[in-house]
Amino acid sequence: MSTPLPVKNGLEAIENDPKLKEAWSKVLEVEQQLESIEEQMLEESAKLAAKYEKIKAPVYEKRKEVITSIPKFWATALSNHPILGSLLEEDDLEVLNHLVDITIEREEESANSHKLIMTFSENPFFTNTQLIKEFTVDKDSAQVKNHPIEWKEGKNLTHNGDSELDSFFNWFNEEGAELGELIANELYPNAFSYYQGGDSDEEDMGEMESEDDEDDEQNDEKPPQKKQKV
Amino acid sequence: MSTPLPVKNGLEAIENDPKLKEAWSKVLEVEQQLESIEEQMLEESAKLAAKYEKIKAPVYEKRKEVITSIPKFWATALSNHPILGSLLEEDDLEVLNHLVDITIEREEESANSHKLIMTFSENPFFTNTQLIKEFTVDKDSAQVKNHPIEWKEGKNLTHNGDSELDSFFNWFNEEGAELGELIANELYPNAFSYYQGGDSDEEDMGEMESEDDEDDEQNDEKPPQKKQKV
Repeated sequence: MSTPLPVKNGLEAIENDPKLKEAWSKVLEVEQQLESIEEQMLEESAKLAAKYEKIKAPVYEKRKEVITSIPKFWATALSNHPILGSLLEEDDLEVLNHLVDITIEREEESANSHKLIMTFSENPFFTNTQLIKEFTVDKDSAQVKNHPIEWKEGKNLTHNGDSELDSFFNWFNEEGAELGELIANELYPNAFSYYQGGDSDEEDMGEMESEDDEDDEQNDEKPPQKKQKV
Repeated sequence: MSTPLPVKNGLEAIENDPKLKEAWSKVLEVEQQLESIEEQMLEESAKLAAKYEKIKAPVYEKRKEVITSIPKFWATALSNHPILGSLLEEDDLEVLNHLVDITIEREEESANSHKLIMTFSENPFFTNTQLIKEFTVDKDSAQVKNHPIEWKEGKNLTHNGDSELDSFFNWFNEEGAELGELIANELYPNAFSYYQGGDSDEEDMGEMESEDDEDDEQNDEKPPQKKQKV
């Protein structure tokens, strides 16, 4: 294997040649057509995703009932997620043992905008019964709305008066949306697998891999397989 | 930030508790429902992708005409792809200067199965006018079919009689499908961007990122932005 070649901008060759410049204007035309088809496809894909979120909603409702009967379900699932789990301090886990439900409320027709609602049983840490974070995404912009955590006296895990402390719950003060994406798109749909430890039981995909599988491999953060074996 | 917690299998808690075992059987039921919805969605997504590949086909035909008028288009685009480019030896590039067309022929109704056809002008290296590799993917299996390269006397870049040599063209003897995926799903649809050097011109996505964007970041192999600026 060679070392990577230096990146070369093909346009430099084109700019010095009037004929090629003319060809390039056709290139841009074709490219615009492809982009507009791509946009249509993304729109239709988003609608498809929204349609299936609607279909899944009642099943998630059923799942919610089942999950509440399993102690520490969400704390276990969260701590088994490779990224989310690595952010949990011991104190965080104590709080998360009171996490009885996660709900993702999706905006109509937009699978990307969502409200994350984490419901807690009464606990020694904060008075909120729900911690909420809202994500509104449209084509050009994204907004995050935080709802403050009402920490009980001396129980603030994110700040000790002088300085910020390491805690998963800092995320409820921050603008970042990444963890919200992980929760909504990985943890939530694959909750049972993560609860089981996110085993790496391999599905036989043959030698060929989908684009997504390749991404996963490169990420080294492969979501667990869905197959359940009990 | 703490060190990652040890992975804990929630099932261990369940196995020792008959009540939880009963709850878990309901879990599996719900999980099966979610999986079957997911399968339906994947099927519909595949159809959508196939539909748009059909819509894009005539535009790609137009693109082909334009591209043939731009010298070394595919060699430039290929060498600018972060992974594909890193596999190219100097001799490979000499061959690729004769690459005048890449065509991806997709199977009806299956966006994943495809035939990769690389068309070459007459060249000192091999007698083939086309190098072809076929990928057939269905739900459970994947097959790769190679068509041999007819190297001219003393011009085989993949083997010198005694041992295998480093060359991009080895891939035409191998079973692996990864490079085919990169060519079909990254290089081919974004050829113009790669030709231009794969600039990292940032689209303003705001603070929120889609799942795909996160994958890209983690890959560190971000495909170039599509926007053309000339």
